[in-house]
Amino acid sequence: MHRYRSHTCGELRASDVGADVRLSGWLHNRRDLGGILFIDLRDHYGITQLVARPGTAGAEVLDKLSKETVVRIDGKVVSRGAENVNADLPTGEIEIEVGEVEVLGAAGPLPFTINAEDGVNEERRLEYRFLDLRRERMHRNIMLRSAVISAMRHKMTALGFNEMATPILAATSPEGARDFVVPSRLNPGKFYALPQAPQQFKQLLMISGFDRYFQIAPCFRDEDARADRSPGEFYQLDIEMSFVEQEDIFQPVEKLMTELFEEFGGGRHVTSPFPRIPFRESMLKYGNDKPDLRAKLELVDITDVFEGSEFKAFAGKHVRALPVPDVAGQSRKFFDGLGEYAVEHGAKGLAWIRVGEDGTFAGPIAKFLTEENVKVLTERLGLAAGHAVFFGAGEYDEVSKIMGAVRVEAAKRAGHFEEGVFRFCWIVDFPMYEKDEETGKIDFSHNPFSMPQGGLEALETQDPLDVLGWQYDIVCNGIELSSGAIRNHEPEIMFKAFEVAGYDRETVEREFGGMLKAFRLGAPPHGGIAPGVDRIVMLLADEPNIRETIAFPLNGNAQDLMMGAPTELDETRLRELNIQLRKPVAPKGAEK
Amino acid sequence: MHRYRSHTCGELRASDVGADVRLSGWLHNRRDLGGILFIDLRDHYGITQLVARPGTAGAEVLDKLSKETVVRIDGKVVSRGAENVNADLPTGEIEIEVGEVEVLGAAGPLPFTINAEDGVNEERRLEYRFLDLRRERMHRNIMLRSAVISAMRHKMTALGFNEMATPILAATSPEGARDFVVPSRLNPGKFYALPQAPQQFKQLLMISGFDRYFQIAPCFRDEDARADRSPGEFYQLDIEMSFVEQEDIFQPVEKLMTELFEEFGGGRHVTSPFPRIPFRESMLKYGNDKPDLRAKLELVDITDVFEGSEFKAFAGKHVRALPVPDVAGQSRKFFDGLGEYAVEHGAKGLAWIRVGEDGTFAGPIAKFLTEENVKVLTERLGLAAGHAVFFGAGEYDEVSKIMGAVRVEAAKRAGHFEEGVFRFCWIVDFPMYEKDEETGKIDFSHNPFSMPQGGLEALETQDPLDVLGWQYDIVCNGIELSSGAIRNHEPEIMFKAFEVAGYDRETVEREFGGMLKAFRLGAPPHGGIAPGVDRIVMLLADEPNIRETIAFPLNGNAQDLMMGAPTELDETRLRELNIQLRKPVAPKGAEK
Repeated sequence: MHRYRSHTCGELRASDVGADVRLSGWLHNRRDLGGILFIDLRDHYGITQLVARPGTAGAEVLDKLSKETVVRIDGKVVSRGAENVNADLPTGEIEIEVGEVEVLGAAGPLPFTINAEDGVNEERRLEYRFLDLRRERMHRNIMLRSAVISAMRHKMTALGFNEMATPILAATSPEGARDFVVPSRLNPGKFYALPQAPQQFKQLLMISGFDRYFQIAPCFRDEDARADRSPGEFYQLDIEMSFVEQEDIFQPVEKLMTELFEEFGGGRHVTSPFPRIPFRESMLKYGNDKPDLRAKLELVDITDVFEGSEFKAFAGKHVRALPVPDVAGQSRKFFDGLGEYAVEHGAKGLAWIRVGEDGTFAGPIAKFLTEENVKVLTERLGLAAGHAVFFGAGEYDEVSKIMGAVRVEAAKRAGHFEEGVFRFCWIVDFPMYEKDEETGKIDFSHNPFSMPQGGLEALETQDPLDVLGWQYDIVCNGIELSSGAIRNHEPEIMFKAFEVAGYDRETVEREFGGMLKAFRLGAPPHGGIAPGVDRIVMLLADEPNIRETIAFPLNGNAQDLMMGAPTELDETRLRELNIQLRKPVAPKGAEK
Repeated sequence: MHRYRSHTCGELRASDVGADVRLSGWLHNRRDLGGILFIDLRDHYGITQLVARPGTAGAEVLDKLSKETVVRIDGKVVSRGAENVNADLPTGEIEIEVGEVEVLGAAGPLPFTINAEDGVNEERRLEYRFLDLRRERMHRNIMLRSAVISAMRHKMTALGFNEMATPILAATSPEGARDFVVPSRLNPGKFYALPQAPQQFKQLLMISGFDRYFQIAPCFRDEDARADRSPGEFYQLDIEMSFVEQEDIFQPVEKLMTELFEEFGGGRHVTSPFPRIPFRESMLKYGNDKPDLRAKLELVDITDVFEGSEFKAFAGKHVRALPVPDVAGQSRKFFDGLGEYAVEHGAKGLAWIRVGEDGTFAGPIAKFLTEENVKVLTERLGLAAGHAVFFGAGEYDEVSKIMGAVRVEAAKRAGHFEEGVFRFCWIVDFPMYEKDEETGKIDFSHNPFSMPQGGLEALETQDPLDVLGWQYDIVCNGIELSSGAIRNHEPEIMFKAFEVAGYDRETVEREFGGMLKAFRLGAPPHGGIAPGVDRIVMLLADEPNIRETIAFPLNGNAQDLMMGAPTELDETRLRELNIQLRKPVAPKGAEK
């Protein structure tokens, strides 16, 4: 028999009754029923119940062991009998009559319980992460993560992509966030940067002729922590393709996401194809560029209705309406509650009306609306008895933000929110440029390296603010999973695109000379995307905190409490790296 | 039709003749035969021949383009005719009559040729890596690497392992080599270390209950470059398993390696099961612990034969013999040549004899051998007519080293070397301790964290130099792919193991407190291994230089010549990281 186990703790069934078996695992739980010990033995694969009768050698040993002790037990599989079957456990029909017991790994007092969630704080959990990971939820999350990433790889390979690793000791890239840097011992005074994303490398792989690349890529940004962002490192499903247009990127990504979310979403359904929503339409209808399409309500621009209005609250302002059907049964509390919600999100208040059985408007602002207003709104918003309309008025951006939030909240409260689904969409047609309201200066609104729609001609002939980019976002349930773009691979179009934003040729050449050099030696049209792996796993695991989906995350202060990172370096090591610590600046007047 | 291509350049066959197609790719080569242009168009998938007739618009465009220009062409598939078929190309039966041509990416003058290997130096190749990777050999190597790693993952998953990523921003580990470090902005004066290997994390995953872990793990060592080691980063197939003995590790790894090398070895055969060779036997028979088993010769210890001998060259020394059959046809040059080879490897000379038809010995040292010597050697070495024997005498280590090298070389030169195979073996039973010859002190010979064979009892009762570890190497064709071990997971055995090597409890507690803390809260027996991915790919690709198997390697000075890493940091950034550069020490007498 194997030294440690003939079976795992998740394996034995009624058909094994009578077998002599050997199991190893953790002492998960123990109950003493009139001297008979019932023990849950746990391993990676499951839990098996052990029974140790009083007076046996096994019972004597097991009686004294702390929870989480690792033991090897020999015993015989017996039936639990119909009345004792535990239908919640795959092994619930059997138990093991314990014979010999061997302690393989002793356990002292535990800092928190493993077999039940207690209120232990996160810092403590991270300090003892190796215990925390034994808990059912964390164990399941980490296994989900592993399975999801494995499936991603498998599916990407099946889609004709090849995984390639790009350097981690790399050069600074113009991604915008702070780099982590690594002093070079062999090149004194110089530093590597850990990649914020393998953006340039993946484009260079296309220029090298590799056609379809992907990588579960480790990325590094020296930023402060957020719930959906681990400080330090994160992973993205980095994708790049050659000889493609926008739709060629969408096809495989849409197939991948649909399959992945159907497979690992715990029964939550995915609707594909994903709608393509132009950026400007999204801003107007949903108030932002990451719409939660589970909310079945849409905003409508009614600015023109109140252009010359007497109603001062709306006149001359940008006005957005949110029609909500089926609110006949809602009390005043519903309307007041949404008003409070809007105020929390920066509104001064939330105007609303409701439509009576006879089509008339009631509510705080009803009296300010003309007959014509009522007629036009009824028509434009498709209003009928039992509908309500919420209004936001003010600056475009502010109204968008507030009414975007109200849209989702109203949908939730009024029963227009679809649960148990993943609603994906593509946001497309991002404008290349925007005007700084204060300076009037034209600048890139998103990614300067995207190909403008219409290429050089568009840049030369169109109003810059009308030029759109081949740039897109993929959004799921209101969460942006990634931006992507067809890249600008032609130096002349790139110079022109930067010229529009006020950068001269020399500046572009100086800042992006490396990529330009490559673009001048035979670059194919190419584009890609890089969905965040962590966010995908968070969505699938239904966890709001990213750290619950990572085995060994840094805490909010970017520390590893278990292993004690970061640490001080000794002087020899600092010297070898040609660096020294800065002395903290002495306060003024302090003695030296 | 698709904007860029209806087919790839590797796709069209005789059955497509007559089809209107669109291809995109690089202008690989161009020949002008009496005004007719024959062009090889290349993409990731292959090469297709284009034909452009004089006077056509296509010919006019194509005639002017530089090699490596990226073009899109429309055309009709035509048959080449039997006499013009190119059997070397999968598309060799057809060619494309070119219609419209569009330049997608222009190419200027190239720093070296892509369609043929020229003698360009490696620095230049690395500076233009995106061009170098277009060359056939590099493209094939990188694709092989990608396919091998993908297959590794697939096979490991099929074997029941789960891939999990461990932190890259980590704590210093006691691996021995230099860490790369990363200053922490949020924790001034402190540094992360990039992992030399995820050793502690993978053990913690076992203690967390994850049973079978693997990872294609990026590892970092700040060491100088070697042919088989890239400066900076490298990858290992990191494996760890719980509730296992040594053989449980061997089984899946052996299955994996056999399948992988059969699948990607280009027809080279793998013999499994892999022999298990005890360390001491390997040192004796092969002169080292990474035997190249393709060499079908073995060393024999004949020290005792010359113990009281008159022959001063051998008497009282360690003497190793290398019998070589079938050298009857070899001239004096063979013997002298091997002598020179031995001298190059540190020998003073290489004694030898050859056995004549009548069983007598001839050769330089024959006259020093007694009748008894001849009798014993003939018997012990199984000598017969046509055999030769080479001798090494001196210190054990030196003789091992020299005769180990001579063994392989003699096998190659005398036809006892098996080509076209992968000969794997496991080296087992490494001693836990060794004695420092000068100080007489007992110290760990390899990994202090391996479980000693016989556990606590062995440490308490055996001569330390006799204690073996559950430690092993996997070797292929003379190349060590990895060390591995069953870990010492019991604090008391660990304290004792360190005590034998002269370390007290307090030191162990201070140095390895983190792991000890985990070992005290329920650790399962566990062990693992971590074969080097780069070395595996080198073996499969038959490339002697590791950089030929990596897309974007650093050069020997740890620089990325293409992207310009490492670089200087500006003062703001250094301040933010709380570090400053050290001023170089001024030479004595220099002005300040």
